[in-house]
Parts: sequence; structure tokens; C-alpha cells
Amino acid sequence: MQLGLVGLGKMGFNMRERVRRAGHEVIGYDRNPEVSDSESLADMVSKLEAPRVVWVMVPAGDITRNTVKELSELLEPGDLVIDGGNSKFTDDRIHADLLAEKEIGYLDAGVSGGVWGLDNGYALMVGGDAAHVEQAMPIFDALRPEGPREEGFAHAGKVGAGHYSKMVHNGIEYGLMQAYAEGFELLDKTDVVDNVPAVISAWQRGTVVRSWLLDLLVRALESDPELDDLRGYVEDSGEGRWTVEEGINNAVPLPVISAALFARFTSRQEDSPAMRAVAALRNQFGGHSVHLAGPSSGSGSTQG
Amino acid sequence: MQLGLVGLGKMGFNMRERVRRAGHEVIGYDRNPEVSDSESLADMVSKLEAPRVVWVMVPAGDITRNTVKELSELLEPGDLVIDGGNSKFTDDRIHADLLAEKEIGYLDAGVSGGVWGLDNGYALMVGGDAAHVEQAMPIFDALRPEGPREEGFAHAGKVGAGHYSKMVHNGIEYGLMQAYAEGFELLDKTDVVDNVPAVISAWQRGTVVRSWLLDLLVRALESDPELDDLRGYVEDSGEGRWTVEEGINNAVPLPVISAALFARFTSRQEDSPAMRAVAALRNQFGGHSVHLAGPSSGSGSTQG
Amino acid sequence: MQLGLVGLGKMGFNMRERVRRAGHEVIGYDRNPEVSDSESLADMVSKLEAPRVVWVMVPAGDITRNTVKELSELLEPGDLVIDGGNSKFTDDRIHADLLAEKEIGYLDAGVSGGVWGLDNGYALMVGGDAAHVEQAMPIFDALRPEGPREEGFAHAGKVGAGHYSKMVHNGIEYGLMQAYAEGFELLDKTDVVDNVPAVISAWQRGTVVRSWLLDLLVRALESDPELDDLRGYVEDSGEGRWTVEEGINNAVPLPVISAALFARFTSRQEDSPAMRAVAALRNQFGGHSVHLAGPSSGSGSTQG
Amino acid sequence: MQLGLVGLGKMGFNMRERVRRAGHEVIGYDRNPEVSDSESLADMVSKLEAPRVVWVMVPAGDITRNTVKELSELLEPGDLVIDGGNSKFTDDRIHADLLAEKEIGYLDAGVSGGVWGLDNGYALMVGGDAAHVEQAMPIFDALRPEGPREEGFAHAGKVGAGHYSKMVHNGIEYGLMQAYAEGFELLDKTDVVDNVPAVISAWQRGTVVRSWLLDLLVRALESDPELDDLRGYVEDSGEGRWTVEEGINNAVPLPVISAALFARFTSRQEDSPAMRAVAALRNQFGGHSVHLAGPSSGSGSTQG
Repeated sequence: MQLGLVGLGKMGFNMRERVRRAGHEVIGYDRNPEVSDSESLADMVSKLEAPRVVWVMVPAGDITRNTVKELSELLEPGDLVIDGGNSKFTDDRIHADLLAEKEIGYLDAGVSGGVWGLDNGYALMVGGDAAHVEQAMPIFDALRPEGPREEGFAHAGKVGAGHYSKMVHNGIEYGLMQAYAEGFELLDKTDVVDNVPAVISAWQRGTVVRSWLLDLLVRALESDPELDDLRGYVEDSGEGRWTVEEGINNAVPLPVISAALFARFTSRQEDSPAMRAVAALRNQFGGHSVHLAGPSSGSGSTQG
Repeated sequence: MQLGLVGLGKMGFNMRERVRRAGHEVIGYDRNPEVSDSESLADMVSKLEAPRVVWVMVPAGDITRNTVKELSELLEPGDLVIDGGNSKFTDDRIHADLLAEKEIGYLDAGVSGGVWGLDNGYALMVGGDAAHVEQAMPIFDALRPEGPREEGFAHAGKVGAGHYSKMVHNGIEYGLMQAYAEGFELLDKTDVVDNVPAVISAWQRGTVVRSWLLDLLVRALESDPELDDLRGYVEDSGEGRWTVEEGINNAVPLPVISAALFARFTSRQEDSPAMRAVAALRNQFGGHSVHLAGPSSGSGSTQG
Repeated sequence: MQLGLVGLGKMGFNMRERVRRAGHEVIGYDRNPEVSDSESLADMVSKLEAPRVVWVMVPAGDITRNTVKELSELLEPGDLVIDGGNSKFTDDRIHADLLAEKEIGYLDAGVSGGVWGLDNGYALMVGGDAAHVEQAMPIFDALRPEGPREEGFAHAGKVGAGHYSKMVHNGIEYGLMQAYAEGFELLDKTDVVDNVPAVISAWQRGTVVRSWLLDLLVRALESDPELDDLRGYVEDSGEGRWTVEEGINNAVPLPVISAALFARFTSRQEDSPAMRAVAALRNQFGGHSVHLAGPSSGSGSTQG
Repeated sequence: MQLGLVGLGKMGFNMRERVRRAGHEVIGYDRNPEVSDSESLADMVSKLEAPRVVWVMVPAGDITRNTVKELSELLEPGDLVIDGGNSKFTDDRIHADLLAEKEIGYLDAGVSGGVWGLDNGYALMVGGDAAHVEQAMPIFDALRPEGPREEGFAHAGKVGAGHYSKMVHNGIEYGLMQAYAEGFELLDKTDVVDNVPAVISAWQRGTVVRSWLLDLLVRALESDPELDDLRGYVEDSGEGRWTVEEGINNAVPLPVISAALFARFTSRQEDSPAMRAVAALRNQFGGHSVHLAGPSSGSGSTQG
């Protein structure tokens, strides 16, 4: 079948290739003419036969919102728009309603796979009507990993469910990464264990903690055994924040995922205002010489 | 080669079978005569030719300590004892020293694999001298999973390093499980996602969060889609506690692993004394009718 | 001076009394005629001489929003509205803009003091223009505690700053209460300390942890030494949630305040879906008999 | 009465002064001859009439242990030793048993008050036999703050209960300080609130969060309104660590106190090995250009 694909960046570029490899025709559009198959959104739409399926793979937020709005003016009843970017699930209802006015269908698709997706496939979590899911299934089958469909694809629920599922996926991801990271730091710090990379490598088979992330950690340690080519400075994208906000909205305790998010915030601070306040308080009650300790006499302080 | 194996419980029983499948001779001893190959520790030792290798696979703590002590009286110079149980790493130096007085070697081995180890193999993290590791390598090769040795076996360092590595492995495991669990609860609670098991199943291929634990969660959801056949009551074994203690001893922050440990503590409480204190405090400053809220007039409270 | 006071519930009723004790005239309005001084908002407004100051002390959310809207239609240029409820700070800009169209002033006031405020006074954090703060200062002085003004009153900043400050105050309050609560539980659990109420009472003077909350905990323990008249079930009002959301919005790590919030969520759960997932995972990798431990043989599990 | 006082450092020096002000005779001993009243421990003991009370106020650990041992050889049946330092409660039973062999009594006293104790008094939590508590009561009354005895003094329980109570006190203190600190950072970060010191000052009267620590924070902000004369580098003494360890030993969840402890650990790291691991993992799955984001095309990454 035919697919219109808006956004040929790191993700979209590879996805076009994977869909083409599966035998489908893809007309891509990107503002960058070097990668684009069409001159404009309108041109892309004109090259597709109705009923059209158009996959939007551009940065979440205003760029996605504007793209969907523009498509609502270009497409026809019976066409289908799929937002595969990292949009917040609350945007999906708005997009679906906007398009429904024109009898255009809408699906939201959470996409996981990163730079490995071209070869490994992209796991897909989709929200929307069953009929729309059916309409796009050949594309989903082209994108998803080999193997049983249900192990790399889910129709998660109504509009929004795809991005919601992807959001939770990424929240979990934060927790998983932090768990490995804490274990790495403890192994790194102790002098009981001599060969940290060997230990982590040995967890790849047979252990409870084996995973794709663990394999990636082994890979990273192969080229940088102390992981000191990198600084411990970690960005966060929106999904971790949204996950914790949704935990709060639903009164679901998320101690691990929030701890992982906060560790990233802390990693980006030159100095912590909070810890300056703690230092100031200790100074206040413990005296100005709180950091000095005399070996011969009374304990420096009885407060912690 | 020959192996003496003390303890034929859930772990040891399967390990005997796996070592035998690899073509080695195993003389097992267990207090339960139905599974034992020998009548006593002494009998087991007498059936092995020197230099002997004896694997201890009994509960950590006094039972392991007593077994090692008894072996120190039964074995001869050149023999080797391997503690494969979940002993605390601080016991290992004591065992090694005790046995070294008799010129008996000692290795500590962290073993991961659980009930799946018989078929999948057991990942091994070993501490001790290289010569002792060499001596027992045929047994390690029999036990470890198929594939490259370094992906399921590590000589982690000196005596204690095997159990230390296993301790950290289990600490990580706590964090990983809690991360998945929090994500599950959020999906379960929201009404945006209809089909939680389908979403989690779809994470098995191509996603960042794919892992063996995720596969097990999918398995669990197949037979119990709401996970309500079980209560949310979770035991903890020693390793999670030791990991956090070692974090404290080494000034390594472990927010995720400790949160996972504390969640288990909380899961076992009928009622929380701490939360009774919070409730009592709110009652004190907010008034006895703090839980009542009148619809027509002033806000019930300006405190949280 | 004169004050119009909308909402004579638990907070407003006492505040009217305190302002009257300071010699001001208060015309209150409440939907409950038994406590109201006027028959309607319009009646209340008609009884005040311009320029009027009207204090709104009704539940946050739609009730406050509707009251402010109604006042915008009843008041005149030069009048002033103060929202003293627990509104979210994001509402304040909307209210201020709405009233500014009619040349009516607006202040947001965070009010702390609870049921003790009548006698102890109410601490006040106010946001808005300095001229409006000046206009209402006699009322602020009547409400705030005895002592230097700056120890119980702050002009925190522009519109919204009062409620923002109160929100952070309540977030801190969550953390403080949870810290005491955790200490209480540890004292309660250990058998080293015999007389927990005596220990906590002894912290009232001279210690680093002395505080009003501690005094209240002593009070609570006087009538209920084990705190077992209450269940460990703790509600949360909006401010704790908003504080964590603002932490996330500003990339400020809030491990303590979020932990306190999540402890409240957990306290209200009959059973934890997350911990059911952890239990299910342990069951999967450790075998169905994971809770059984045989005394005579191998360790039940090598996973945590 | 008479008191022997060993250790005239920051704490002991002031305590001697406070006990003397109450009319008692104090013979102090310190290795520093400039402050000492005696030439040696033996000399100090010889200057006291039996039955003697000797207060030990030296650094916890080996120095305290050695002092107690030396005193066990110098004192006589009926004498009493009080350890007022920050010893771990597990040392107390050992000290009590050692002294009991010589029929010398032992009390452990947790002391709070820091540099403010000379004038405000020292709160005391005491463990040991009632008869010994009675014997030393005049000294306790001299040291404790003015007011009812039970508000600044507790006989907490048997030997060890004093230090245990002090340990928990300090654990709570960690949580309280971190709660204020997080609130400070959020106020500091937002641009909604203009005058952070004014807001915190206004919390001193009438609020739920008022406390001595809050007063100290106000004091600190008076001389350093941004708290930028200090670095956010915070030491920790033993008590916070011991509190979390005891939480673990007793299966008491301590999310707030542990978070406060871990925040201190993090504050002392130049760079976090754990966060290097997270950064490395993101780099692995998101591609080398993960930090670059193109405005015109596809989303840079679909992982967090």
C-alpha cells in the first residue's frame, strides 16, 4: 500500500526505509529537500491515492499540532492520520476531534526502537478505533519487529492509549536505567570487586537482570570500561515528567520512577540550592567550625 | 571430573542434574535421604578422590557456616570448597581463612538462575584465587549458560567478590522489578488504556524495556490478567538489604534500590505506624472534623 | 476599616472573629444563613462603603472561580478582592486579569494557621501590587500573629506569589510530617526504647528537631500513646501534588516531598497493584513454592 | 554534687560551664592542658569523692571505647559512668557489661543542643537502670533546658535506649532539613516569588512549618539571602546512616530519611558514576547525536 510520511529525521528516515523494504510505497515529506520525496505537504498528499494514510513523525508539541492542523485541511473524508511522535496523550483527543470534523480518521502510535529500529523493527502501541487500526495494519506489520504480532504491536485502547502506553514505557525505562546505574556505581566504588565490566558482562545470560539495556551497558563498557569518557549529565525528555505527573493525577505511588527522574535533574546542577540550605542549617546549629574536628578532645558536634 | 555437592534443595537438586548432563560425576549429600547420594558429609567426602571439589549449596547463615567448618575437618590439603549459596560477602574471608589453615582452597560463587537454571544454565560470579578458579572451571562450564563463557561467568575478584557481585545483581533486580511494577500500576489505574496485558506483551520485541523480567511479567499476565490472584505482599531476602547497607557504607546514593526495598517493607504492613502519626498530626492542626467538608462555605482546611 | 468576607466555614468563621477583635467591621456572607451577616453577595457588597475590600474564603476550584466572577460584576473600580483560599497559583493571573478589566484590584493570600489561627493568628503570604497590599494592610495586621510583622506576613511578589508560597509551605509540611512519622515508627518498632512518648516529649526543648509539629505530636501521644485510635490512612489536599508538579516543571529534585506524597497515596490502598506485580515476578522466576523453605537442604532461591 | 567530665571540646567545654552555673563542682579532664582541670584520668578520678559520677564526652568510636575501658580500671564499685557522646547504641551493652563486672554503673545519654546548649540547655535521652538515672539526676537537671523536666529529659529505656533515641532524633533532623531545603530550592527557582527570604521569614509565626530549624534558616538568609556563600556540599555524621540501617534491620520503610541521606552523598560527588552509566545507556540506544535536535524534521528520539 501507499504511505505518506511527514518528517524524515532520525526516526522517520529509517522508518521510510523499513516500510519500503516491506514492499510498500512511501512518499515522504520533510522541510529538508535533500531527504524529501515531495515539495510540500500538499504535494505529498497529491501524490497519494485516497483513502490515504499519513504518518506524522515530527517533534512533539507545536510542530506536530501544526502539521495535524494542516493535514486536516489537505486530506479528505476516509483518510487517516497517525501521529507516531512523542506527543503527550492529552493532545490526541484534540487531534482526533479536529480530524473527525472532516471525517478523517486518527490514530496515535507510540513507537519504540530508536536507532536500532531500522533493523530490529519498531515496537508499536496504538490508540484509536479498531477500523482505523485495521486500515493501517499493513504499515504496522512492516514497522514492527519480526515474530508474533502481539509481541511488538498492541492496540492499546481508544485515542490517546498509544501515547499513554509509550509514556509509561519510557517512565519504566527511567527506572530500569537508574537501577543498573546504581548497581554499577556500587560495584565501581567497592574494592571487593576487581573487574566490573566482567561482572556485568556475565549477567547477560541466565540471570534475572538480563535485558537489552544490560546488553547495551556491556557494549558501552567495552569501549569505555570506567565510563569516564562521558560526564554524568543526563537530559530528560517529556515522558518521564508526564509519567510522574500522571502518577500524581491518579494517586499512584511512583517512588522508583520519580527517583530516577530527580536523579537526572540533580545530574544537571552545578551546585544544589537545596544542599546549600542544608549546609547553612548545619552551620547554624553546629557552629562555624563544624567542619573542624580536634583529635584530642570533645566530639565536634552532637548533631548530624 | 568429580564434584561433591552439599544441599540438594530446589537449587542444588537441579544443579546436580545439570552437572551430570555435562558428563561429570556428582556425589550429592542432603539431610533428606530421599535425594541424597551419601549418608553423611564424611561419607560424601570419602567417595571423592583427592584433590576434591565440594560445592556447598545450603541456606546462608549458620547452616552454611557449620557446613564449611565441618568440611574444614573432613577435607585435605589441595581440596577446594565453593560456597554457591546466598552468603553475605563478609562471611567469605572468614571461610577462606579457616580453610587456608588446612591448605584447603575456597571460592565464593554467586549463582543466578532460579528454577530456570536447569535448562537455561546458571550465571556465575566467582571470587577467589585464579588457581582455584582454574581448578573448578569444568564445573563452572557445566553450570553456566550456553554461549560465550564471559556472558554467563565472571571471575569477579578476590574472595568475597562473587557474593558481592551477586548481592549487587539482586539489588538491581529489586529496582528493575519495582520499575515494571509502577508502570503496571499506572496502566492498570488509568482508563485511557483498555488492554494492559496487550500493551505489556507488545514491549517484548523492539523496545528499550525488553528483558527477561518483562517476558515473565507477560507470562504472569497470561494466566492472571489483572494479577489479582496474588496479594501485594512481598518478602525480601537478605541481598536487597545488604545492597543498601553497602551503599551507605560506601556513600553511594541508591534512591531507586532503597525505594524498591522499602516498598516491600510497606507491602507487608497491615497498617503503617508512620502514617498513623501523619494522620494524628493532621488531626491535631486541622481539627477533629478535618475529614468533613461543607459544600456551602469556607474551605475545610488550609493545611495539607 | 470595613471588610467583606465571603465564606464562613471553619476558616472564615474564625477569621471574622479575629478581625472583629482587632476592631474592624466585618460583613460576612455565607450560603448558610445561620452564620451569614447578609442575604447574598450583592447584599454584602451593598453594606460596604467604597472602596471595598472583599476577602474570599471558600473552597478552591469552581466555587472560588464563580465567586470571583460574581464579585467582578458587583464591585466597582477601586475595590479590592483577596482570595485567601487554597487556590492553585495559576488561577490567580486569570482572576487578576478579569478584575482588572473593571479596575478592581486583586491579591492572592496564602493563609496558614488552621483551627489554631483564631488565637495564634494566621500567617499570611500575599501576591499582588504593592498599592493593593497597602490598602488591605489593616486587615492583614489583624489576622497575622502577634510580633514583628515580617515574622508572620510577607508580600511574596506579584499576583500568584502568595498561593505559590503557601503551596511550597504545604509541600514542606508533608516532608516534615513524614520525617517525624518515620522516626516514630522506628522508635515504636525497636525494643531498645521502652517509652516512646517520653522520648518524643523530651525533644520539645533544646533539640534540633523541636517545632510546633513536634508539640502537636506530643499532644497526640498524650491521649493515644500508641497512636492506635487512628488508622494509617492519610488524605492529601492539592498543594502537595502541585508542589511536586512544580518541582517537575522547574527541574527541581524533590525526593523528600515526593516520598511523603507517595506515602500518603500508598496509605490509602487496600492492596498495591504494583506489589502484586512484584510478587508475581518473584513467583515466576523463583518457582511456585517460593514461599516454602525447607530447613534441611538447599537454599530456597538465589533470587531476591 | 561533684562531676568528673572527660573531654572538654566544643561540647564538653560548654557543658562544664553549664553544670558549674547550676552550683555543682566539675573536675574536667582533657588531653589539652589549657582547658583541663586535671593531669590525667587517674588524677581526675582521685579528685572525686566516691560514689563518683563520670561523664564521658569524647568522640565516638575507639576514643570513647578506650576511655570507658580505662575508667573501668580506675573507678570503684558504686561509681557511675555516663557516655554522652554520639556512640552507636550497640556499643552501650558492651560498655555496661564491662563496667558491671566491677560493680560500676553505666548510662548512655543522647545529648542534643550543639553550640546553643550552654544557654538553652541540652536535651537529654538516657538509657540504663532507674537507680543510676536517679543517682545522676542533679547533673541531668543542670544540663537540661529550663521548663518541665519531661520536655527536655527522658529516661528512654534500658542501656542503649539513650543513644538509640538520639540516633532517631538525628535521622528525623536529616529529613526535616531536606524538606526545608527542597522548598527553598523551589522558591529560589521559580520566578513567581520575588522575595524568598521574606516568605521564609513569614513562616516563623502561626504556620504549620514553624520550628527552630526554620528560625535558623531565617538567620542564615539574613546574612546570605541567596545562600551562595556556601557550597552545596554536606557531610554526614554516623547517626543518619545508622538510622537507615536500623530501618532496614527492623523492616521499617524510611523513604524520607534515606532520601535525605542520599542527597548528602550526592552533594559530595564531583561527578556521578551512576549518571555516567545512564548517559552511556541513552547514548547507546539513542545514537551518538542524541543531544542534537533538528528543528525541521523528525523527532530526535523516541526514547527518554
